[in-house]
Amino acid sequence: MESIRLFCPATVANISCGFDVLGLCLDTIGDEMTITKTAQKGIQITRITGADLPLDVTQNVAGIAAQAFLEQLGTDQGFAIEIHKKIKAGSGIGSSAASAAGAVFGLNALCGNPFTNKELISFAMKGEALASGCEHADNVAPALLGGFTLIRGYEPLDVIALPVPSELYVTVIHPQIALKTAEMRAVLAPEIPLKNAIAQWGNLGGFIAGLYTEDYNLMQRSLSDKIVEPVRSPFIPGFDKIKETALQNGALGAGISGSGPSIFTLNKGIKTAKKVAFAIAENYTETGIPFEVYTSPINKSGVRIINR
Amino acid sequence: MESIRLFCPATVANISCGFDVLGLCLDTIGDEMTITKTAQKGIQITRITGADLPLDVTQNVAGIAAQAFLEQLGTDQGFAIEIHKKIKAGSGIGSSAASAAGAVFGLNALCGNPFTNKELISFAMKGEALASGCEHADNVAPALLGGFTLIRGYEPLDVIALPVPSELYVTVIHPQIALKTAEMRAVLAPEIPLKNAIAQWGNLGGFIAGLYTEDYNLMQRSLSDKIVEPVRSPFIPGFDKIKETALQNGALGAGISGSGPSIFTLNKGIKTAKKVAFAIAENYTETGIPFEVYTSPINKSGVRIINR
Repeated sequence: MESIRLFCPATVANISCGFDVLGLCLDTIGDEMTITKTAQKGIQITRITGADLPLDVTQNVAGIAAQAFLEQLGTDQGFAIEIHKKIKAGSGIGSSAASAAGAVFGLNALCGNPFTNKELISFAMKGEALASGCEHADNVAPALLGGFTLIRGYEPLDVIALPVPSELYVTVIHPQIALKTAEMRAVLAPEIPLKNAIAQWGNLGGFIAGLYTEDYNLMQRSLSDKIVEPVRSPFIPGFDKIKETALQNGALGAGISGSGPSIFTLNKGIKTAKKVAFAIAENYTETGIPFEVYTSPINKSGVRIINR
Repeated sequence: MESIRLFCPATVANISCGFDVLGLCLDTIGDEMTITKTAQKGIQITRITGADLPLDVTQNVAGIAAQAFLEQLGTDQGFAIEIHKKIKAGSGIGSSAASAAGAVFGLNALCGNPFTNKELISFAMKGEALASGCEHADNVAPALLGGFTLIRGYEPLDVIALPVPSELYVTVIHPQIALKTAEMRAVLAPEIPLKNAIAQWGNLGGFIAGLYTEDYNLMQRSLSDKIVEPVRSPFIPGFDKIKETALQNGALGAGISGSGPSIFTLNKGIKTAKKVAFAIAENYTETGIPFEVYTSPINKSGVRIINR
């Protein structure tokens, strides 16, 4: 039967000044999925490697996203999904989003692309809702579109693809501790000082202007978060030290990836990104907490076909 | 003695989604100022027409801004300033900013431009502080730089010039009622719901992306304000009706200019801008409140020299 093998990238959401609206797509970290047309109607998840996740379609983000896609398309075609997880669950770099995005991208490709990648986002969000309790697009949007994405709003969903400055590289450290997205949501106050909100939207505006003009200095000045980082970072052991080390080694900025515990840094040039990776890895060893460090260019296209 | 005559434009601050950070410069509404080098050291305000404003340098925004400029430059050169006000005080389209910006622009030109226009902003802000009680740049920045400006932050002052879409025109209605900036500040809650803040920075990001890509539809979707407009607009008689009329006649968006009472609308094309002007003028006549309506392209250069 016809089959497709996919690379399903990890993603970084929030990016300091863009809480709940900004995301970017990574290129060197991601899952693999194989999706095959089946004679049997509906979705089956036939195999999962690399993680202990349910094969039950209704309990799996890829399964739920795939079902949402099929329902909308109204096809009798069936699909078998194999998932090879490489992004750890709960890492804060879009593990569930990669599965949800991969599933709908693969089904769409095997059906002759009836939907645009932008249209696929809403199906993938159904999968995200299983993982985090709410339909959010800040990881599935960059996973499906690549590059930087802005969620302008949700009513209706409005995702804007932003430009990718050519020399931008991401270094991510994943301290292997468990943080729950729901708990990280709960530490946020429902109200924030207006003056902090103004500072945040000034910075988000500056960062977006920096992306359009490839002004790395402006991006650097804009990568600030007075709202979420102060309340969430204490849950990540060594956060302040990692950030300090990254900045000292030339990173443009550093912050919590998604709701953590991963920490991202943005860097001008691969050389700086690697220097930052080396310095934070060397430094973090002292904590005794297991961790992984990745360096990646920004993936401009999102989920991609490995072979078909 | 050497003399310079200037056009000092009106400006629109906030622009719905950019409270306290966005501003734009108008082209058909503005004061005139004449600044002349004098043998006498220091600043004198020799004449003001069109408004009842103090000639005392320490009580006049142009005087204070000019003195801040002279102090920083450390010159013994003196200047006489004539101000011909055409922008009404308290109109919400940057009347005090025009005077402050014009003063420092003129002095700078007569001194051989020791400062860039961007550097002049901080002197003009000293004048603004007299008018509104705090040093803010959201009107003086567009008055000095032209176009759209973003105040990324104040510590230190960081002003970003944004692109000006070629077909964008502004229509402004000034209902001639008195609103105090300080009172309009006081109606704002010191804390706002996080979800509204997120919606606002999503919209600001979308609007800025729309400016860079000349995407008028995106600008339209982004021109929304759930934070300030709901609490300030009830102070402006007929606000809802003006906004509704503007949108029905094709405006991309409408909102409070600065802290009011003027209401701005952004429009694609001069034809739409004029249609909107006509419709809101026709409509507002019913209220019995005196008003003026202006239509203007966006002024790309800010304060300009009429002759020298």
